[in-house]
Amino acid sequence: MDTFVIVGGDAAGMSAASKAKRDDPDLEIVVFEQGEWVSYGACGLPYYVKGEIQSLEHLVSVTPEEFREDRDIDLRTGHEVVAIDPDERTVTAEHDGGAIVQSYDHLLLATGAAAVVPQIDGVGREGVYTLGSMSDGKELREYVARAREGESFHQPDRGPACAYLEDCEGPVGVVGGGYIGIEMAEALAANGFEVNLFQRSERVLTGFSEETSEVVADHLREQDVALHLDAGVRELAGEDRVSAVVTDDDRVPVEMVLLGTGVSPRTALAESAGIECGATGAIATDPYRETNVPDVYAAGDCAEALDVVTGDPVYVPLALTANRHGRAVGQTVTGTPTEGGGVAGTAAVKAFDVEAARTGMLDHEDARAAGFDPVTETVTAKSRAGYYPEGGEVTITLSADRETGRLLGGSLVSEYGEGAVHRSHALVGALESGATVFDLENYDLAYAPPFNSTWDPVLVAAKVLSGSLQS
Amino acid sequence: MDTFVIVGGDAAGMSAASKAKRDDPDLEIVVFEQGEWVSYGACGLPYYVKGEIQSLEHLVSVTPEEFREDRDIDLRTGHEVVAIDPDERTVTAEHDGGAIVQSYDHLLLATGAAAVVPQIDGVGREGVYTLGSMSDGKELREYVARAREGESFHQPDRGPACAYLEDCEGPVGVVGGGYIGIEMAEALAANGFEVNLFQRSERVLTGFSEETSEVVADHLREQDVALHLDAGVRELAGEDRVSAVVTDDDRVPVEMVLLGTGVSPRTALAESAGIECGATGAIATDPYRETNVPDVYAAGDCAEALDVVTGDPVYVPLALTANRHGRAVGQTVTGTPTEGGGVAGTAAVKAFDVEAARTGMLDHEDARAAGFDPVTETVTAKSRAGYYPEGGEVTITLSADRETGRLLGGSLVSEYGEGAVHRSHALVGALESGATVFDLENYDLAYAPPFNSTWDPVLVAAKVLSGSLQS
Repeated sequence: MDTFVIVGGDAAGMSAASKAKRDDPDLEIVVFEQGEWVSYGACGLPYYVKGEIQSLEHLVSVTPEEFREDRDIDLRTGHEVVAIDPDERTVTAEHDGGAIVQSYDHLLLATGAAAVVPQIDGVGREGVYTLGSMSDGKELREYVARAREGESFHQPDRGPACAYLEDCEGPVGVVGGGYIGIEMAEALAANGFEVNLFQRSERVLTGFSEETSEVVADHLREQDVALHLDAGVRELAGEDRVSAVVTDDDRVPVEMVLLGTGVSPRTALAESAGIECGATGAIATDPYRETNVPDVYAAGDCAEALDVVTGDPVYVPLALTANRHGRAVGQTVTGTPTEGGGVAGTAAVKAFDVEAARTGMLDHEDARAAGFDPVTETVTAKSRAGYYPEGGEVTITLSADRETGRLLGGSLVSEYGEGAVHRSHALVGALESGATVFDLENYDLAYAPPFNSTWDPVLVAAKVLSGSLQS
Repeated sequence: MDTFVIVGGDAAGMSAASKAKRDDPDLEIVVFEQGEWVSYGACGLPYYVKGEIQSLEHLVSVTPEEFREDRDIDLRTGHEVVAIDPDERTVTAEHDGGAIVQSYDHLLLATGAAAVVPQIDGVGREGVYTLGSMSDGKELREYVARAREGESFHQPDRGPACAYLEDCEGPVGVVGGGYIGIEMAEALAANGFEVNLFQRSERVLTGFSEETSEVVADHLREQDVALHLDAGVRELAGEDRVSAVVTDDDRVPVEMVLLGTGVSPRTALAESAGIECGATGAIATDPYRETNVPDVYAAGDCAEALDVVTGDPVYVPLALTANRHGRAVGQTVTGTPTEGGGVAGTAAVKAFDVEAARTGMLDHEDARAAGFDPVTETVTAKSRAGYYPEGGEVTITLSADRETGRLLGGSLVSEYGEGAVHRSHALVGALESGATVFDLENYDLAYAPPFNSTWDPVLVAAKVLSGSLQS
């Protein structure tokens, strides 16, 4: 009987375990997870901190008990794998001060990613948080609760930045204008905090189009988020506890700081066993997620994946890829080699009352480096028929290659509920099939007045870009 | 200077005129429209009758004056074209009792479709309406207004069917359970009428999947629509005015009847000039919309189009196709031959608080006739992350070919606002590129908790169908 060992019990790991067990009930599956939580929706943490989700347990899709009892998976939480021996085909895991050695026939590394803590003075101060794990979420929610109960962390500093807001729970700083930064700005503002968002670059959501960034930034300001753009953070100042965010130009008093400065793949275990990483820094794999070491796979936030536009390895740590690639490994190790597909870098975010999505390649330098001659157009169109009583606007940026017309990427933004995110599905369909913008403008998309104009905004954008390419 | 003559001033006709003028400002363009309205959104008529749109003018996207003055298009309303002479390259139009002969270099037939009046006794009675034109919409709205102002059309019959509803404006009958029938059921119910919907077949929305039909039917009943399924209408009984809908089994008192029994292409003018129709009964064209008569084109609701799944001619009279193909003809006659793409039969409908969409080929007999071996699966999945505070369910039916895995079609339904319609964009992207369900299950679709679970319902459906195909 073969043994399939998995290191890491979140999206990729548990997807692999579940699929492998379903496809081959005789396979012995051992999952080592260093923490206590498995298979949880980390993407829900901002909504837990916000207070819209009442319990961390609600983020768990399958409990450890269910994995053990219903799915017959030997899930060992609190076990940290500290070594892999590819020659002996074993892993060593530490638990409760002891160590065990477990042999494997197939090994999946699903070690995930860790929140990046930037090299800034003061990141170790009390009151500085990241949001990379369930325990991070718990701590943040506790902080919010204490502040709302009236606990003041810096009476003297609770000054001008906050004073104009009624019932303000204190000024806080969010460092980073990506998904996490923006979702946490929403979560904190909803709880009455005065939010200062610090972004090193000139715009938020740098992976989206400039026009998307602008719509989101304007909306954040409307929501009383103090946006500090082009603002590299120099120091998180204070005594034991953080009390101010210091940038080149400014010193903003805060009672806490949330670092939303991205994640980096956890690769130390792999590297110590001679498993190679790619140029992105994440574990390199073939299309079946197998590493350079036979029978050792890597999937999810610790691994690279292939870009559907360029075919090159990229590092895009997102939940769907982890699930999909984990599942594919589960099929592969049970005898059905499965690729699990590439990544388009598709991402979505809700920012207060705005929604945005992006997919494919939007950056012109990236596109030129990949051999394309990118042309980009942005349109704003009504989200529903102009005469329909409800509705708003969708702003769509599309990029295509001048010579071939091939769609390279897109970015969409609308009021929340006006469909920017689900409309991106059309663009993903086009990107996955290598369609041109001339194909896209002829897509027979659904139309009815409550959902769009006769030409869906996606088609309007495609028509405009198609016109530019032909002129 | 060439002359481009267009017969019919709605979606296809005015799209062609506008695009041709933009691409070749020197082209002389003459549009003959027999009515007074041009370029209007007929799809908005149910919402006008409902009262959500205040004026018929709001449905007009470009007015006749704008076409004439801003776009320099010689638009002649109130002109009925009664003959085409392909040898002389002229059309004859009647206006105000006189006739004019206009020569053309290019001719576009955009004569549209007419509401089908079924062969039922009593369809000529007063109080029987269709919804095919702006004047139909006007009459219906006037009827609704009079009823709401207290005018009773059949005091004696205003009996049991209506009595249990407070402030009921009277029982009405809608014949036909397609888009128009359902949208009008909503419009009439919103105005306090007791709606009886009569559908000849066993389910509403026969072009959608059975599961979609079922969700919609259940919802219609929840909204107090009396659904009469499998109920062929024998007679619209009454004296001068309709007072009852008579089916094989029933006699339902009504104060008015709306016929929503489909449309048929207006082809008489074309046929009288020797322009051929296809097996569907609509005007046959090549991929550039040219008919069998050189320089005579046909587009929109009077013409066939090519199915993206089978490549065969089909008759799917929908607004987007009319716009797209009209526009393509405008490009073709100005020197840029343009196909304008096929049709996937994609359609969307809002039914009270439910939304639904369909695309491609769902019927197994149709699929077999086209040489496929169809396999269908239906799943119901959460529309947003399970832990997210808002959300509902999406039910998705997907059909694919057993041997190749090629996606053939899909049908989706959800609560209104939960994204069934925009999610269909992913399926259209797949159909347009001939993708398989194995491709689809790997689509890197956008994910964030406010918009879906990690696996969007589309992906869940693809996974399940993929599993069935492989088992």
